Amino acid sequence: MGKKTGKQTYYFTNPPVIISTGTVAGPIEGQGPLQADFDEILTDPRNNEKTFEKAERSILTRACQLALDHASCPTGEVDLFLAGDLLNQIISSNFTAATLNIPFLGLYGACSTAALGLGLGAMLLDGGFAGTVLTATSSHNSTAERQYRFPTEYGAQRRPYQQWTVTGAGAALLGYDRPGPKITAVTFGRVVDLGSTDPLNMGAAMAPAAADTIRQHFEDTGWDPNVFDLIVTGDLGKIGFELCREELAESGLKLGDNFSDCGIMIYDLDKQDVHAGGSGCAASALVTYGHLYKRFQRQEIHRILLVGTGSLHSTTSVQQGDNIPCVAHAIRIEA
Amino acid sequence: MGKKTGKQTYYFTNPPVIISTGTVAGPIEGQGPLQADFDEILTDPRNNEKTFEKAERSILTRACQLALDHASCPTGEVDLFLAGDLLNQIISSNFTAATLNIPFLGLYGACSTAALGLGLGAMLLDGGFAGTVLTATSSHNSTAERQYRFPTEYGAQRRPYQQWTVTGAGAALLGYDRPGPKITAVTFGRVVDLGSTDPLNMGAAMAPAAADTIRQHFEDTGWDPNVFDLIVTGDLGKIGFELCREELAESGLKLGDNFSDCGIMIYDLDKQDVHAGGSGCAASALVTYGHLYKRFQRQEIHRILLVGTGSLHSTTSVQQGDNIPCVAHAIRIEA
Repeated sequence: MGKKTGKQTYYFTNPPVIISTGTVAGPIEGQGPLQADFDEILTDPRNNEKTFEKAERSILTRACQLALDHASCPTGEVDLFLAGDLLNQIISSNFTAATLNIPFLGLYGACSTAALGLGLGAMLLDGGFAGTVLTATSSHNSTAERQYRFPTEYGAQRRPYQQWTVTGAGAALLGYDRPGPKITAVTFGRVVDLGSTDPLNMGAAMAPAAADTIRQHFEDTGWDPNVFDLIVTGDLGKIGFELCREELAESGLKLGDNFSDCGIMIYDLDKQDVHAGGSGCAASALVTYGHLYKRFQRQEIHRILLVGTGSLHSTTSVQQGDNIPCVAHAIRIEA
Repeated sequence: MGKKTGKQTYYFTNPPVIISTGTVAGPIEGQGPLQADFDEILTDPRNNEKTFEKAERSILTRACQLALDHASCPTGEVDLFLAGDLLNQIISSNFTAATLNIPFLGLYGACSTAALGLGLGAMLLDGGFAGTVLTATSSHNSTAERQYRFPTEYGAQRRPYQQWTVTGAGAALLGYDRPGPKITAVTFGRVVDLGSTDPLNMGAAMAPAAADTIRQHFEDTGWDPNVFDLIVTGDLGKIGFELCREELAESGLKLGDNFSDCGIMIYDLDKQDVHAGGSGCAASALVTYGHLYKRFQRQEIHRILLVGTGSLHSTTSVQQGDNIPCVAHAIRIEA
């Protein structure tokens, strides 16, 4: 049974365990600093499929299979599958769900999907509605870029503040009675719209939503941010991350060296040509389910706050002159 | 706390109540047989907005406000907002969430969204994660048609088996300690892909998913279909509905006169030029939150099974030659 504390935060009576994870990273992500912590790395971004969209769903399905295999869990034992992605009508997730044959709840949270799936999955487990939940998400540079901006084949010049959509997929199997880090609290965010209108600068658009949820989490729990080994936003990138840090500091919450961003961590920003860092659902999924999950296993970290961030615009809303509404969800994970 | 029965069905320890609803119907829906049961009817499909997309979100926001007003519930008392729609990146829901300022979980289930929101909302309430949940969805003929098919301004000739995307929005406020029909069981569906490829014949594509979930619900519960005043699919339309009935009969489940479809009920198929009937998220939302909710209030019905149906394709997946995967979620509602 859940217990709400403060305005937006929930504790669990019986905190669900992240039993296993599965990750597949794209070629560029596989050359980055976290390469050793991904299960599989693509050599071909098309993964032997005819289209990039089919490639994206193939790696999402593969990540799910890896998570299931790592726990020796047959699909028939999974009660619910929660997934979403960036593509219109979340087709990567829908087609993966058709393969898995597990009752499916489709999510849309843009790049906050990993956090949304973890939080919702944990609630359904703690609420007694499932014994095992699989949650997953993906993004692909060539599918997202052509849907939101330009086909990558055009070779369009990118602005220095733009982020690089991460190619990859991550899945996590949640349940009980197995070892693993636990999901102990969740803060679901409100949609924040501070008037940002540039879809090429999503980090700046998402920063206020991230700050809002982080502030709310600490207000609701009364915890000291220093008890966390890591407070990690989803994919703000260099510019959005600094804006978020500044906004938090201005409101009296000064975060220290334990504050970072998956979009910054996943690449070597000095050597890899990714401008402001990574974005896309796979940014936080690869970092959390790959790198951070393995750090938990190696007992290098014991308590983190994952703050998934999502930019909730579409090309149509941008073309019609709308602002970019954003959201962030915070998930506390403890050894 | 939830209790799973059979493979895919959940019962509630403390069944949540549908405290209030809010509905806004489009002009054509407002001329149909259920007009008296909608809260508001648009005279202008653009609802004084500059674009159809802005009109869609305006009626979604209005439906939410109506549901809150009918229960005299300020937004500050709602714990979670669950919503989704057909537009790319569910922008109608995102912008409505930005207005409401309630922690937001974005859903994607295509036309099954009303059922998905009801089922998930009920689980979060029964699991102790919320005292009050608002769930809503919308569709708009002119936004969906131009996104999925042709802009309505083209006046493209429609095929006789096509359905008409319903313009409308519906919202439901779920909670406790108030009178109203209760959500007593939920069967979440698997994604079914039987090889259908025609996106103009979505009823036929969705029929097997609807049949799968209905069959599973009765297998899981062991109930007799005749105890329901109504077993109502989301938006199969005339053709999909007959296919679903046939498929169920072939597998030994003969449904009688209490079996119907929201897409058929919402229009007068003899007089209104909507071909095979209604489709879109608003089809089941308007019928359930408008017509059926009021029938519960008038004590004309006491037990229904809503089977929301969703076609999970995108224009990209269709263009790439993919099949159309579909899903259906069943929600038992009892007085």
